Parts: sequence; structure tokens; C-alpha cells
Amino acid sequence: MKRIAFTLVAVGALGGAGALMVPASGQGDREAAPIYGITIPVGYRDWRLISVNHLAGGTLKQVRAQLGNDIAIEAFRTGKLPFPDGTIIAALHWNEASSDESNKVLASGFPSAGLQSFVAGSAVNVQFMVKDGKKYAATGGWGFADFTSGKPGDETLHKTCYACHLPAKDRDFVFARYAP
Amino acid sequence: MKRIAFTLVAVGALGGAGALMVPASGQGDREAAPIYGITIPVGYRDWRLISVNHLAGGTLKQVRAQLGNDIAIEAFRTGKLPFPDGTIIAALHWNEASSDESNKVLASGFPSAGLQSFVAGSAVNVQFMVKDGKKYAATGGWGFADFTSGKPGDETLHKTCYACHLPAKDRDFVFARYAP
Repeated sequence: MKRIAFTLVAVGALGGAGALMVPASGQGDREAAPIYGITIPVGYRDWRLISVNHLAGGTLKQVRAQLGNDIAIEAFRTGKLPFPDGTIIAALHWNEASSDESNKVLASGFPSAGLQSFVAGSAVNVQFMVKDGKKYAATGGWGFADFTSGKPGDETLHKTCYACHLPAKDRDFVFARYAP
Repeated sequence: MKRIAFTLVAVGALGGAGALMVPASGQGDREAAPIYGITIPVGYRDWRLISVNHLAGGTLKQVRAQLGNDIAIEAFRTGKLPFPDGTIIAALHWNEASSDESNKVLASGFPSAGLQSFVAGSAVNVQFMVKDGKKYAATGGWGFADFTSGKPGDETLHKTCYACHLPAKDRDFVFARYAP
């Protein structure tokens, strides 16, 4: 019982440390995104991984990760659709960068010829989808927010979010699938 | 105070639920990797994100994520080198797959022309680096393990791990850098 209590305290303490690393520390400092009124969720960088992807073929070369709060992760793992109220999905986008150290290994031809590794470089933006069936009824139950360097994008940008997610309507407007 | 206590219990309960989802449920079921004797750490899929990358240019097309246990994440965030004993880094590798839903949006030319999204498809393998300065003194303090579908690779494969990580010697043999 003593060990259980210790574990809980330790997890709590670590969660707190993570939350302190969010650039905007206080609720009052954080600017809400237009239309949906969403602020950057405290501690989102500590959330668990949903999946990763990268963009190629155009001028944007990005590596990306999607993280989910506990409600999101449970819904993904159990295949629950639509996602329940309280779900928040964070999409982190970085410029892709080359990795000298990795490429030194890959240049040797191991594990196969011609490979290069592209890693996460500077942050581009962070996007959030927040599920609230009542509040966001007009947009499939989702609120959307896009932040660059902690600052929300403008209203014009936020007007594109829902339309952009329509092709994923069969999966409750969510593109990301849980990676095994 | 009541609220704090509730939060700690909730985090503890969720951590437990996550651990139950690891495919190999019992310590006894899990086969250790050769040379280093490392088994798949229970609950690693719940660990926090270090960074992501992808491989391109050759026959292997993969998207990848690196997750860290609490000791690893704290070391990355504070820039602590060498990594302390107890650090575990997990590298998850997936075959890259195309995303029909994402590509429908990108085909419209938004947000810029010619883009395609490549997402995590089937799992390829999962690798672990475990820091134990005494136990693994001969290999920079790190033990290495590689698993495919829950089964460890052979001794020949595991003999390549340390040599492969030598180019990252200045960062304690760790390729991954923490993504902002």
C-alpha cells in the first residue's frame, strides 16, 4: 500500500513538471483561437502518441505527430466512434531536418542502400481538435485551433478547418488512425 | 487538497489501464533479446514522445517515433548527458502508408500544391536502449534490443547495435533529439 501511494505521488509530480514546460504558464496568459475559443491545453506535450506521419512531394516538408489526451487514447484503442465529449487531439508539425549522425550510419549502406533519415527540426505549428457535441454542433461536434509559436492563427485560417476535415467524416472527421 | 488527491488517483488508474494493453501480459511470457537480456518493457506504448522521423531514398520507407520513460524524458528536457541509469528509449518503426482521406484534402492544393501525406502503416519493429552503466559498460553503458511482432531478433542482429550508434557518441550514443 505504501508503494502504491508512492507511485501515485511520483506520477503526479512528474505530470506537474511536464506542465511547467508549456511555454504559456498561466491560463490568463494564453490567447484563445478565434471562432472556437480554444486555448493551448496545459501539458499536451505529455500526452500519449496516436500516430506519426510526414508530408512530401511539395514545398512543405514536415514530420508530424498526433498526441491524445486520456479520453482520446482510450477511444482510439477501443475503436470508439464518434469520439466522446472531452476528447482532445493535438497535431504537432515540425519542419523536417536532416540528421548528420543518422546519415553517417545510413551512408554505410546499413540496413539498406540509399537511405536518408529526416528528423523533426523547428516547430511549425500545433493544432488541436476538441470534442464538445453541444458547443460545436455546427462543425461535427469539433472545435479547432491552430497555434504558431503559442499564438493562434486568424479567423480566415480557422474557417478552413472543418471543411478540410470533411473527407474523414466516416471516422468522425479525424484523419489520424492509431499506430500499433 | 481533495482535488489534488483525486487527480493522483486518476492518473494512477489510467496508467494501470494502459499497462494492461501491452500484448505480452506477463513477465514470464516475454522473451529476452540476446546479448543484453532485455525484454519488452511493460507499458512502453504509453510513454511520452521524444521525437519522430522518417526514412526515405531507399527501399525502406518508414515513419518512426521515439518514446521515453520518465527518466529519459526528464534527461532530454533538461539536456542531461550522459543519460542516467534507468533511462529507456523506445524506437517504434512502421512501414509508411498513404492516407486516402488526407490525400483527398491535399489534392485540392491546400495548404500548398503537390503534397502527399504518408502515415504509419503496419509495424516493422520496436527497438529499446536501456541505460545501465555497470551492466553494459562494454557498450557505452547501453543495452540494446530489437523486437519484431514481439519476438527478439537474433544475436547477429544485436551485434550490430552498438557499432551503429557510435556516430552519436557525443550525445551518449543517442540519435534522437527532443522535438519542441
